[in-house]
Amino acid sequence: MKPTSTRVIADLEELAALTSNERGAQRVAWGPVWRETRAWFTAKLQSELGITPHRDGAGNLWATLPGASSRSLVIGSHLDSVPGGGWLDGCLGVLAGLEVLRRAKAAGTPALTIHLVDWADEEGARFGRSLTGSAASAGALDAPKELAHLTDRQGITLPAALAENGVSIESMGTAHAYFQTLDAVAYLELHIEQGPVLEEIKQPVGVVLGTMGVERYNLKFIGQAAHSGAAPIHLRKDAFLAAAEFALACRDISVAHSGKTPKTRVVATCGVVKVEPNFVTAVPGSTEISIDLRALDAKVLKRMLAETKAAAKRAAKLHHVTVEWSPLLHITPRLFDETLMSIIRTAVKEVTGKAPELPSGPLHDAAEMADIVPTAMVFAQSSPGISHTRLEDTPRPALDKSIRAFLIAVDRTIAQLAAPPAKRRRA
Amino acid sequence: MKPTSTRVIADLEELAALTSNERGAQRVAWGPVWRETRAWFTAKLQSELGITPHRDGAGNLWATLPGASSRSLVIGSHLDSVPGGGWLDGCLGVLAGLEVLRRAKAAGTPALTIHLVDWADEEGARFGRSLTGSAASAGALDAPKELAHLTDRQGITLPAALAENGVSIESMGTAHAYFQTLDAVAYLELHIEQGPVLEEIKQPVGVVLGTMGVERYNLKFIGQAAHSGAAPIHLRKDAFLAAAEFALACRDISVAHSGKTPKTRVVATCGVVKVEPNFVTAVPGSTEISIDLRALDAKVLKRMLAETKAAAKRAAKLHHVTVEWSPLLHITPRLFDETLMSIIRTAVKEVTGKAPELPSGPLHDAAEMADIVPTAMVFAQSSPGISHTRLEDTPRPALDKSIRAFLIAVDRTIAQLAAPPAKRRRA
Repeated sequence: MKPTSTRVIADLEELAALTSNERGAQRVAWGPVWRETRAWFTAKLQSELGITPHRDGAGNLWATLPGASSRSLVIGSHLDSVPGGGWLDGCLGVLAGLEVLRRAKAAGTPALTIHLVDWADEEGARFGRSLTGSAASAGALDAPKELAHLTDRQGITLPAALAENGVSIESMGTAHAYFQTLDAVAYLELHIEQGPVLEEIKQPVGVVLGTMGVERYNLKFIGQAAHSGAAPIHLRKDAFLAAAEFALACRDISVAHSGKTPKTRVVATCGVVKVEPNFVTAVPGSTEISIDLRALDAKVLKRMLAETKAAAKRAAKLHHVTVEWSPLLHITPRLFDETLMSIIRTAVKEVTGKAPELPSGPLHDAAEMADIVPTAMVFAQSSPGISHTRLEDTPRPALDKSIRAFLIAVDRTIAQLAAPPAKRRRA
Repeated sequence: MKPTSTRVIADLEELAALTSNERGAQRVAWGPVWRETRAWFTAKLQSELGITPHRDGAGNLWATLPGASSRSLVIGSHLDSVPGGGWLDGCLGVLAGLEVLRRAKAAGTPALTIHLVDWADEEGARFGRSLTGSAASAGALDAPKELAHLTDRQGITLPAALAENGVSIESMGTAHAYFQTLDAVAYLELHIEQGPVLEEIKQPVGVVLGTMGVERYNLKFIGQAAHSGAAPIHLRKDAFLAAAEFALACRDISVAHSGKTPKTRVVATCGVVKVEPNFVTAVPGSTEISIDLRALDAKVLKRMLAETKAAAKRAAKLHHVTVEWSPLLHITPRLFDETLMSIIRTAVKEVTGKAPELPSGPLHDAAEMADIVPTAMVFAQSSPGISHTRLEDTPRPALDKSIRAFLIAVDRTIAQLAAPPAKRRRA
């Protein structure tokens, strides 16, 4: 049966109508709209496929279509959104997964068991910890340490929000054991790019090489506040000028380490800047600034970090201030599985004529999966190249092609991995 | 009678003990500690000199010692402080003025009438409008337009705070008429430098050339927020990088226009920086930044502003963003009176051996006076070179010398201006 995108796009539209308001999607994890979303999704699974999904200890929702083999292909993404999010981020992958189940069931019994998972709290929008459910499944979450103390802006604790959903800090620890029972041989995910790369090269669908590693720090430049009229330039210790110098140097470092292709690009971002005392008549006495470095190549990322540290030192010296570093996040690059990427490459090329490759700068549930099972992803073009806004979109022709390429890649993956049971190992 | 600083320093210490807490001076204008300060000052005038001060419509407190002529010398500064201020900013000048009255009265009837004024709300600490009382006296305040709408952080309106002090928006307008009755021929003020210039050149006392002009603007660079991982550097519209580029360019402009001496120095300061959305994972979509340019030479200030505007344009272009300017403050440079400066120069040199000249970057009540009467100022060294903090200080030897130089300059001014009644005019 030839794959089509019709039902997936219809489902996406139905979900958007159900769970968005004038500011965008409101499917924030652990909240009422998210529960409504899952009820809608569960009803679909039951009515169309006769499958009642199972919830693991971390709140991930699993729908299983048993195959000829208990060895399994896992397909996943997330139904949760940021507040005021878009109509595709996350749910595209879950609803394409629903179509996978529909097609596989219609065709009889699949060669591999297929698990479709809706990961819980990918966004971390409410409590600040993203990839919660997939990290728990991957055995990469120390819930008592990482989650127990978190609160939202209303002061509600994460454990209290979990309890409303029948999940607890303790139950989270069981999700990994559940995953291990699945005998998963591959994980595939379709997601929108959330950036402008495919749009720039005018390609509707991309092959994802992996997720970039991240080095994230908060820097504090400390100088001396002074009166804007009274302090001569040469006697100042202007903490903001040091931060400005640093930010521009970080940009230069990222440009120097970037290759010309999407594959070899790296990024550096100063997103948070806080100046004290922040008066029009005060030379800034201190400035906090965040740096977020990303690269697919771990060696490149390491060199970027070293150069960034040297740049901060130089900037501090130049402006007679000091600088302190506090680590915020360290994530190693996750390179996707070569065999699966090769299958995806062929499928994307069949549908679109080309198979452009790019790393993912944003993290995805696939990054957690890549640590424990061969993993790959397909990107649908974002246009405009932004997400986490109601303006997020993928033009219909690109959306159609990305869904079809993904469905073909899934078919091929099942066929290839089912064929010689013992041959496949993680690349 | 040889001038000494003993009583002035004793008064300063008494006032500090009376009106400071562990965070510094708390003589905020229109508040209870300020009223207490003025009651203490009034009691001193009454008990030591038999003078009962008069309050004008703007709340300025005037103490008059009648002289042989109704032509008058005005001596002033301010008893109000910022919250957590220092022990010298403002009250040094008022209490040195008290010593002027003591010495003049002890010596008989002065050749000129002497008015000592404690200006109301020089700091503008509570409502944001500085030089309130002196501007009203100079006829440079449109109180209904500039003051009527102001509120403090507690939501109390300025008119309500004025009412607690027997002042109204309407009565403010009468202060200028009162000043015009004084037949003032000169205005003198002693103040701490509030900066590190005299400390750097190791001079205890300085001759002030005037107050710098100010060009103050708020700029908003507008780009496009994007995900720190998803947006390649070359496709970004990073508003913060444009602001950083701008701030460093402003510094370069101020260095290029600065001469090597304190007299010819200019300054540029970016004190307020606000980044949106201010997330670690977000390329800044917009950045507000303030620029405060100061120079004693109006032509230099004009050129600096033009170059600053060009720099903002270049920075915006370089980072593919736009920039908008909003004016905040425009103050023309006020050059002090040549005759008075010459008298001060001689007095300072007599006491300290040198007479270093410097402009004032911060504004002073003297800047308002300079528009309507020949005006000059003496600076006492600040060490450390900061103010608006309880750490503000002047070493005792420098404090002593600055007070003595000021008292000598006052004596000479009275002698010189009283001598040929018709000869003096403003330079």
